[in-house]
Amino acid sequence: MGSDAGRKIVVLRLGHRPERDKRITTHVALVARAFGASSMMLTVKDSGIEERIRKVNENFGGDFSVVFRPDWKGAIRGFDGQTVHLTMYGEKLPDAVEKLKRDGDILVIVGAEKVPADVYAMADFNVSVGNQPHSEVSALAIFLDRLLDRAWERSETSGKLRIIPSPRGKHVIGTDKEKTV
Amino acid sequence: MGSDAGRKIVVLRLGHRPERDKRITTHVALVARAFGASSMMLTVKDSGIEERIRKVNENFGGDFSVVFRPDWKGAIRGFDGQTVHLTMYGEKLPDAVEKLKRDGDILVIVGAEKVPADVYAMADFNVSVGNQPHSEVSALAIFLDRLLDRAWERSETSGKLRIIPSPRGKHVIGTDKEKTV
Repeated sequence: MGSDAGRKIVVLRLGHRPERDKRITTHVALVARAFGASSMMLTVKDSGIEERIRKVNENFGGDFSVVFRPDWKGAIRGFDGQTVHLTMYGEKLPDAVEKLKRDGDILVIVGAEKVPADVYAMADFNVSVGNQPHSEVSALAIFLDRLLDRAWERSETSGKLRIIPSPRGKHVIGTDKEKTV
Repeated sequence: MGSDAGRKIVVLRLGHRPERDKRITTHVALVARAFGASSMMLTVKDSGIEERIRKVNENFGGDFSVVFRPDWKGAIRGFDGQTVHLTMYGEKLPDAVEKLKRDGDILVIVGAEKVPADVYAMADFNVSVGNQPHSEVSALAIFLDRLLDRAWERSETSGKLRIIPSPRGKHVIGTDKEKTV
């Protein structure tokens, strides 16, 4: 969790509708955080998601942030690094990752159901995680897994709580609670 | 997409509440289908999800099914193969995959926010995809990616539509529509 030293990964979530997409966008944010991004930009304000992530940081560490950025075109054009749009229509992930694997910041663009056609032209890469429909949540996880060489497997938590991997039950160590169920 | 010859992967989705979880559970089903499972069991009837998956099969191939199975304890106990519960509290994914990698069917259990404590005792393995909170959608994708050695990267579609990987725009070939945007 947290970005690799020297390389910053930012996720831009397009098309978020607070009523309908609250839970999916929250999962996108949690995946971004857990798999190595440092922030997520949202084109609409959603304080519920911001608060949820703040609590996760408090408990599990890191400083992943959710940023309100209404001008998504400006966000893509102004990004100092490579921009990658995840879409089932894009070029294959293994091919794209080969081209991307070097230093420098990366903006990962993930849409909701429909994405403005401009995005395909504006992104440096359109990348598909398979050619079957699935989910922006899984597409982002697999993309970051490949891009950062499984960095999430080696991450350590630094928040109030720490989970001890366990074949049975829940083993959680915390400053104010410790339990084994 | 579709299970490996000789090995069947079934997903059991626990705790689905049709009002609240419709979209997340749909994403779980789509991930199960796209990453190599053959069916998903739901403990409550949800004809909306069944219909969505039927249409995806029609367009993109395969015969992934959504099965109504209210008795989840019976589903776990009666399963002829290994049962794996995905949870952030479980043993680490790489360790677990080493133990699991052989022939035989696998039942993958994914919960919603809270999972009955019995599940931890009933599953053969409790497996964590990282020790950070993220999503059952991403956990299932990463688990199947590792378990089936990226089988999804080699899958071919067999439905009415076929997507041609493309660095720009959408390239879809279909029996009744063909478009390049």
